Amino acid sequence: MNQVVNIDQKLTEFSEFWTPKIVGDLNEQQVKLAKLKGEFVWHSHKDEDEMFLVIKGELKIEFESETKHLSAGEFLIIPKGQRHRPVADEEVHVLLFEPKSTLNTGDQQNHFTKNNLDKI
Amino acid sequence: MNQVVNIDQKLTEFSEFWTPKIVGDLNEQQVKLAKLKGEFVWHSHKDEDEMFLVIKGELKIEFESETKHLSAGEFLIIPKGQRHRPVADEEVHVLLFEPKSTLNTGDQQNHFTKNNLDKI
Repeated sequence: MNQVVNIDQKLTEFSEFWTPKIVGDLNEQQVKLAKLKGEFVWHSHKDEDEMFLVIKGELKIEFESETKHLSAGEFLIIPKGQRHRPVADEEVHVLLFEPKSTLNTGDQQNHFTKNNLDKI
Repeated sequence: MNQVVNIDQKLTEFSEFWTPKIVGDLNEQQVKLAKLKGEFVWHSHKDEDEMFLVIKGELKIEFESETKHLSAGEFLIIPKGQRHRPVADEEVHVLLFEPKSTLNTGDQQNHFTKNNLDKI
């Protein structure tokens, strides 16, 4: 049956950075949790908007023309096609909402790319 | 440009219960905030899964065969078609994630029904 998901509990179940874990599926979208630290790669998602909700820490999301700063309890929706780069000076925990089809590195393929995400 | 949304700030901007406010749009889905108190109506959503993420308070979601209890930092995905009733003994604040097409009372029309939601 339907499971209540405790976000803090799920966050204790993994430690890798930049490796989103699937914690929910609905309407062809997924809810993911991720731990971030350091600089990610510049990328964009051609067809998918992406939402970052910060659970813990301070996240910067760099765009070509500006940088957005997010604290715990804040979210940002990144429209499809917009180049961006998440940067976490210290460890950050985020909840992501995005279509099932979303690849973490979007139009880029590199050592950060995760093709098969775990469900936890 | 992209706006950072502070959930607590948005929650100060309205006080009505059972009146979701749209705070984000992505991928034909919407992010909504709502304040709940008391018993809602039994209903289901024929085509839409629905996610409740509790920001503050203790929420019960009754199903025909069980009741789920959610605290702050917990979420539950209610699959399409499943009859349910949210119950908040004390005031609860939730973030909802669901398709644009979702009507709050699903297959029911009554005094709780909100056809046009505000964007805040």
